[in-house]
Amino acid sequence: MHILVTNDDGVYAPGLIALAQAMRKISDKVSILAPDHNWSASGHVKTLHRPLRVKEVELEDGTSAWASDGAPSDCVSLALLGFIPEKIDIVVSGINPNANIGHDVTYSGTVTAAMEAAIWGIPGVAVSLDRPEDFTGPADFKPAAEAARRIVTWLGEQSGVPKDTVLNVNVPCGPLDKMKGYKITRQGLRIYRDELVRRLDPRGRPYYWIGGDVPTGVDEPGTDYGSLSAGYVSITPLQLDLTSQSMQSWMEKLNFEGDLPII
Amino acid sequence: MHILVTNDDGVYAPGLIALAQAMRKISDKVSILAPDHNWSASGHVKTLHRPLRVKEVELEDGTSAWASDGAPSDCVSLALLGFIPEKIDIVVSGINPNANIGHDVTYSGTVTAAMEAAIWGIPGVAVSLDRPEDFTGPADFKPAAEAARRIVTWLGEQSGVPKDTVLNVNVPCGPLDKMKGYKITRQGLRIYRDELVRRLDPRGRPYYWIGGDVPTGVDEPGTDYGSLSAGYVSITPLQLDLTSQSMQSWMEKLNFEGDLPII
Repeated sequence: MHILVTNDDGVYAPGLIALAQAMRKISDKVSILAPDHNWSASGHVKTLHRPLRVKEVELEDGTSAWASDGAPSDCVSLALLGFIPEKIDIVVSGINPNANIGHDVTYSGTVTAAMEAAIWGIPGVAVSLDRPEDFTGPADFKPAAEAARRIVTWLGEQSGVPKDTVLNVNVPCGPLDKMKGYKITRQGLRIYRDELVRRLDPRGRPYYWIGGDVPTGVDEPGTDYGSLSAGYVSITPLQLDLTSQSMQSWMEKLNFEGDLPII
Repeated sequence: MHILVTNDDGVYAPGLIALAQAMRKISDKVSILAPDHNWSASGHVKTLHRPLRVKEVELEDGTSAWASDGAPSDCVSLALLGFIPEKIDIVVSGINPNANIGHDVTYSGTVTAAMEAAIWGIPGVAVSLDRPEDFTGPADFKPAAEAARRIVTWLGEQSGVPKDTVLNVNVPCGPLDKMKGYKITRQGLRIYRDELVRRLDPRGRPYYWIGGDVPTGVDEPGTDYGSLSAGYVSITPLQLDLTSQSMQSWMEKLNFEGDLPII
């Protein structure tokens, strides 16, 4: 199994090193191609308007990696389009130092890297660590890396893994033996508590921060947020088809197509 | 109805002006807050790491608008978080000069602006013009603007529009009376034909373009792509919940949770 490791925090992030080390326990074919800087909350990007650079770098643990000035999804495209000549079997992205749950998945560079893999027909796994709000100091990514290792190993043992598989994995903070198990979950609801903060620059001109409290979530059983807060590793399978069938039915019931003559 | 108009091509794009003019036929309360530069294929962004600037600008038709250095989704956040003090009832984004169909929706700044509105509990409508591959010269955005006007008018007439409504509207090129009608569709499949193009700079160092042919799609009835190519205005309702139920079932059937002891 040839594993591509990427992330959205940049190639030197400790979460990426922990993830790559765990993946090397599964396979001796692990490639790293990740952004050369932080792209958090960058969303799904395809850089077509400018060329991308890729350079070889050495990571803290002495291993080598490719760093690109593109977004996480660009890194996946670059690798799969042939920058890394050998066939890639799975893309693993992370470890993000904060949870990616609920609506976060549409903003998250970590998750969009896994989605980009699925668009190219290769399973993608996004891994995030759910650090509590009041967490300070360096995070221990090892338990989350170990959880990722088990999940990727499990996937590797199955036959017929759907080609458009995207798994959004969130791991509670703390040692693995304190966790309750692995839970297949559905995407929950984030509660964003953003506030607009208006300030004046030294020349008296206004500027604006999207500030406010860190987001919370709706604590429902079966969801990513609910399972995490109950102490489980949350694994939410995601799909690329965003069609809302309930909204389709609502519009059809109201005779939308019939109501609206073309001119 | 207070309508917020935004886009991802930048505030001066002709598609935005056409859209705003059509919206002013529905309501005299139309606000424009859009990026000050092009953010195409930028995905869903939340800019938290730097402050945002907003300035007032005059558009080609003499109307005034707000321009921000944030992404399309930032513009929607700014407006809804209070930069525009009056309550906004609907966000309309576009008109993108190219179709946003299939997997495009995860990359599209036009669509993520509408998604951002839905995250804040306000219906969002993304509008794109499906210019054919060989199209040259300035596009006529008026028919697509008129289609958007009808769709937004229809929405405004309904009671109980779901708060998380996102409509992804794609309009064929050409006059409205040549179109066959409006079709509620599902998200189809894009076929990307990207290729990695490797070049050398004048100093002999490599750089990479994500190049190749423009994407095509799978021409299936009922999809965005299929309906567009059959001459219909395609309206795909999108949802923010990306959970894959089929993948959940697949993992449950294989006893994923039972198979995987926590340590």
